[in-house]
Amino acid sequence: MTQAPLDASKLKVTPTSHPTQLKSNDQLIFGKTFTDHMLTIEWTAEKGWDIPEIKPYGNLSLDPSAVVFHYAFELFEGLKAYRTDDHKITMFRPDMNMIRMNKSASRICLPNFDPEELIKLIGKLIEQDKHLVPEGKGYSLYIRPTLIGTTASLGVSTPDRALLYVICSPVGPYYKTGFKAVRLEATDYATRAWPGGVGDKKLGANYAPCVLPQLQAAERGYQQNLWLFGPEHNITEVGTMNAFFVFKDNKTGKKELVTAPLDGTILEGVTRDSILQLARERLDPNEWDINERYCTIDEVASRSKTGELVEAFGSGTAVVVSPIKEIGWRGEDIQVPLTPGEQTGPLTKQVAEWVAAIQYGKEAHGNWSKVIADLS
Amino acid sequence: MTQAPLDASKLKVTPTSHPTQLKSNDQLIFGKTFTDHMLTIEWTAEKGWDIPEIKPYGNLSLDPSAVVFHYAFELFEGLKAYRTDDHKITMFRPDMNMIRMNKSASRICLPNFDPEELIKLIGKLIEQDKHLVPEGKGYSLYIRPTLIGTTASLGVSTPDRALLYVICSPVGPYYKTGFKAVRLEATDYATRAWPGGVGDKKLGANYAPCVLPQLQAAERGYQQNLWLFGPEHNITEVGTMNAFFVFKDNKTGKKELVTAPLDGTILEGVTRDSILQLARERLDPNEWDINERYCTIDEVASRSKTGELVEAFGSGTAVVVSPIKEIGWRGEDIQVPLTPGEQTGPLTKQVAEWVAAIQYGKEAHGNWSKVIADLS
Repeated sequence: MTQAPLDASKLKVTPTSHPTQLKSNDQLIFGKTFTDHMLTIEWTAEKGWDIPEIKPYGNLSLDPSAVVFHYAFELFEGLKAYRTDDHKITMFRPDMNMIRMNKSASRICLPNFDPEELIKLIGKLIEQDKHLVPEGKGYSLYIRPTLIGTTASLGVSTPDRALLYVICSPVGPYYKTGFKAVRLEATDYATRAWPGGVGDKKLGANYAPCVLPQLQAAERGYQQNLWLFGPEHNITEVGTMNAFFVFKDNKTGKKELVTAPLDGTILEGVTRDSILQLARERLDPNEWDINERYCTIDEVASRSKTGELVEAFGSGTAVVVSPIKEIGWRGEDIQVPLTPGEQTGPLTKQVAEWVAAIQYGKEAHGNWSKVIADLS
Repeated sequence: MTQAPLDASKLKVTPTSHPTQLKSNDQLIFGKTFTDHMLTIEWTAEKGWDIPEIKPYGNLSLDPSAVVFHYAFELFEGLKAYRTDDHKITMFRPDMNMIRMNKSASRICLPNFDPEELIKLIGKLIEQDKHLVPEGKGYSLYIRPTLIGTTASLGVSTPDRALLYVICSPVGPYYKTGFKAVRLEATDYATRAWPGGVGDKKLGANYAPCVLPQLQAAERGYQQNLWLFGPEHNITEVGTMNAFFVFKDNKTGKKELVTAPLDGTILEGVTRDSILQLARERLDPNEWDINERYCTIDEVASRSKTGELVEAFGSGTAVVVSPIKEIGWRGEDIQVPLTPGEQTGPLTKQVAEWVAAIQYGKEAHGNWSKVIADLS
């Protein structure tokens, strides 16, 4: 028997009998409250993808032996929908998330799907709850596609049952009162990812082990870990974000935007990719080099001393960019310059504005904005 | 408010109204069928451990945003109960599993508990379903304590809610018709664990990523991966088991039992520990060295050529020992000797008998056997 493909046209919708109102913007907390509906699609090795369903948000009922509880057969994506000035609801580069979701799934033997079909279904889900997409700069609907293995068996093997589901959370800006630059602890006592591992995939397995090091860093006054790798102490990521550094060569005056190369240990961030593309398109190549290369904490420390370290930030879907002001390393705090009187550097701020303008439909960029509902 | 400790005396029992019969021994499949009841204990950061409950085996109902589904806040244990010749039901070294479970929990910011209390509760659970503990050599009740984070929030942080539950599966011998030696593929294209990671903990995160490499090895005719680490290609584990090798020095005639040291990348196997203890107690030190040391695949390959490789096996709770007959490495198959006409080597067989004699109560060894029910 052939496995049925994911087919958005088979969607079954069961609306809630208790629709809710959108909370006021100041009450939105990331990932704590959800919209009225969720999308669920069951998969079996025998039949493939079952009929997609949009139904009232509610608990999942799973056998206690389901492999998701024991062996971390789970992966997710994070993307956002925005309410634009011209009364549309759009998603930002959802094709990138779908491609990455399939890559994550393949890595842990969970099923793939047609990205276009899932994008259509997520669009339907958002349309169903369009009154819960918040309005205003920095406000958006966070979308969380999730895929879990549901086979009820303690054997460690390829799951023959899975559940793909999507839930949505109305969210506000990460920094309610403008940017707030963070202090990081450069971390060599715990390792986030390894060659031959799964650090480039959005698997649940990459997350729980990072919470204890964060608590340890927090005890010493740092908000996040700056993850290092190897004897060279290459900088890989920051917290759950990609990491960017800006240097300025004292001799030539040329500036360089640097992030770690996608070597299998680095999450293939959609925001990372967007920043690199925009920087390559918009920064003057006579003044800027844009490089995906290894950069060690020692380079950051020594170029801080010579005044060549000019900015640093993390990037991710939740936050877009997160300015960095200090990095603890071997008992010293490396100072990262900020624009005087501000909690960010100039490129960090510029990049945030570039991305936001596209996300909120003030500006077009190829097919980065995908319209899912026209409310005009 | 202080957090309540885990307290077995508060146990609430709700018996099933549909008790089942034990299947015949030939129908038992590892981890596919479960006993009539399960043990559940909820925990919150606010109140600590709630009342333990034994209730009919049934689905868990969880919010789709629960952190167990997204960030792999999950860990487990595996141990067994045995029906002994003198009509008792015993568990094998449950204290070791409880200590390890707390270590796993601490590593991903889930709560700890008093090991003695959970052992008492597991005892009660098994007594409740004692008719489902199978009888006969190689038959046992596989016990799966599981701890999951249940906080309904997409924030990546310490869970403030958790669920500890225990389910039990009646199981037969891993090898129904005696030993069956396996072929391994020495694996340097995927990495199971690394320094600063979580490979020594029984976290779900360590398991899903290992299934694809196993499928890749299987496509080439190998049943399991022999996990290598680092540029030296140190042997770390085999499949989901610890790995043991036996060498015999051609010059001195002395034999050596070798397994990897507990350096943070190796699961602290209870069977591993038991084998090392028994070997140190029972093998003649004039004839044997028992070493926890690094051993590379190149050492195994070269000592195979000189006739110094005499045995190899994996060890774990499900299987006790799993003899190895061949190891694929760089296009060649390293041959591991077996006793002529058998699917095992002499020490592998001996070790299996030692452990089984203690597990089935034919022999005592300190406090390794914990009586949980006396049916005589």
